[in-house]
Amino acid sequence: MSAKKVVIAGASGAVGVEFMSVLEKMDFPIASLRLLATKRSAGKKMKFRGEDIVVEEMTPTSFKGADIALFSAGSSVSREYEKAVTDAGCVMVDNSSAFRMREDTPLVVPEINPEDAKKHHGVIANPNCSTIILLMGVYPLHRKFPVKRLIVSTYQAASGAGWAAMEELKDSTRAALDDKPFVPQKMPYPYGFNLFSHNTAIDSMGYNEEEMKMVKETKKILHSDKIVVSPTCIRVPVLRAHAESINIEFEDKVPTEEEARKLFASFPGVRLIDDREKNHFPMPLEASGEFDCFVGRIRKDLSMPDKALNVFIAGDQLLKGAALNAVQIAALL
Amino acid sequence: MSAKKVVIAGASGAVGVEFMSVLEKMDFPIASLRLLATKRSAGKKMKFRGEDIVVEEMTPTSFKGADIALFSAGSSVSREYEKAVTDAGCVMVDNSSAFRMREDTPLVVPEINPEDAKKHHGVIANPNCSTIILLMGVYPLHRKFPVKRLIVSTYQAASGAGWAAMEELKDSTRAALDDKPFVPQKMPYPYGFNLFSHNTAIDSMGYNEEEMKMVKETKKILHSDKIVVSPTCIRVPVLRAHAESINIEFEDKVPTEEEARKLFASFPGVRLIDDREKNHFPMPLEASGEFDCFVGRIRKDLSMPDKALNVFIAGDQLLKGAALNAVQIAALL
Repeated sequence: MSAKKVVIAGASGAVGVEFMSVLEKMDFPIASLRLLATKRSAGKKMKFRGEDIVVEEMTPTSFKGADIALFSAGSSVSREYEKAVTDAGCVMVDNSSAFRMREDTPLVVPEINPEDAKKHHGVIANPNCSTIILLMGVYPLHRKFPVKRLIVSTYQAASGAGWAAMEELKDSTRAALDDKPFVPQKMPYPYGFNLFSHNTAIDSMGYNEEEMKMVKETKKILHSDKIVVSPTCIRVPVLRAHAESINIEFEDKVPTEEEARKLFASFPGVRLIDDREKNHFPMPLEASGEFDCFVGRIRKDLSMPDKALNVFIAGDQLLKGAALNAVQIAALL
Repeated sequence: MSAKKVVIAGASGAVGVEFMSVLEKMDFPIASLRLLATKRSAGKKMKFRGEDIVVEEMTPTSFKGADIALFSAGSSVSREYEKAVTDAGCVMVDNSSAFRMREDTPLVVPEINPEDAKKHHGVIANPNCSTIILLMGVYPLHRKFPVKRLIVSTYQAASGAGWAAMEELKDSTRAALDDKPFVPQKMPYPYGFNLFSHNTAIDSMGYNEEEMKMVKETKKILHSDKIVVSPTCIRVPVLRAHAESINIEFEDKVPTEEEARKLFASFPGVRLIDDREKNHFPMPLEASGEFDCFVGRIRKDLSMPDKALNVFIAGDQLLKGAALNAVQIAALL
């Protein structure tokens, strides 16, 4: 790959910072890097490969001459700048939900559907964090043993709601420990030592937006309208890695536990953590900061042993759930 | 009910303390109350209805003249003292797992199978906390719309592992906040801002003891060998209330959401918390200290809308999951 001129939009956010750390760790060939943010963060200096880069205010002319723009600044910003980016001949890899379900926008997990990235018309969407992590726990089996139905309960970290949520988790936890009052600002309820249903709007069927992303994005990424998903999305007091308890029902044949373990262990981006004797399974604390998603607790569904398996997965929400997946998409170009 | 002579075995433990608070709050008619514990706690004074009671060391003669012994001192202690208790003509209500699956020992949730309590031969077992809370989220529907299969993922609090685990959660959280090292003592892994698979031994099928309790106890309490359960038990960094995400598949007819809401709202011991507009659903923080289990997020399973519902429940592990249920059993006698 020839060195690229890269722009990061939303550089000062929780995902923005990870874009830089991932570009560094992956040794991504970079000809130039520009950091963009709102006026508020402009002028701030951020380190990349040992050098200071000054954050600039994003304007429609910011993308001139750039090859790739990594966006994580919210849906409305992505919509506002789409034309400016593509008109400049730059490819937008967008971490927001703005374009994910648009027909001509590929939605890509590079280990799963890399070929879709090539069909882009200027924008490639990064899936929702919970969907990416779900599919890293399902696709390694699905490609050999087609999957029919997924029942998933999430254990989602604060990082999905950004820096402010991570800080609020710490602050509300400290207040609880010190028996002091705490008024939530970013989250709808006290977060320390508590958990609650994902704080997004709920539709007429009773599902929140996060859950519906998992339902719809799964079908799009796997190119299957047949796969049905029954999600329950819960925020737990964990800082930056999501976990998910997944019940996987297969169309026809169910893999043996040994087959499933082999399929996971040999899949790129997955690390098998499945030690029954030591009771060592995927945990958010161990998955934090890691590129791999950790998969384990692989076992036959006792209620339907000939049809279904249970698995448990943990993956860093800011890395595979966001920045890493986006940079991997950029590397496909 | 005539006033009873009550003995509490394991009075200084996390559940023991709650036995007393529940007896007080329920205004349980008590002729006398004796508090028993190991030698280590003997001599300690504990308040009951405003008066000090001195904790005594438990011996085989401690139960002479007593009507009811509430036990929460671990399985081996329950086994050791069973004969002494029943020989004294005292009924043991046991919170441990020692006798739960024994054929001639009733396993009772008073709102569900109170009639079983009458068939005791000196011992009545209190079900496992996760099972009780699961069934409070299932039985109100099951009695009108028979249930076939349950897929449940738990979000379990520290209290299930006693005082020491609750303290360790606080200590390890404080260490994480202060960026200080922490070596877990009671738990297998650092607990602050983390979660992990339930720390009990795992069988050849890959299920831990907590999960198998849910599978077996559900069948016994509901008197049904047909009901199958697929559980995943996870400890989350929450202090004293468990939550569970339950996918309920029905044998034949599935209740409408409105029917389900009515059935839950009218069931004793259940409080319906299901406000989609305000995104207000069951949370451990709100369920802590409450006698009721909170049920909400009632919605059709999108993957099988004609067959299944999803619900989310939160209940105080020390109350309905342990002490409250046991005192309710005692009140049936």
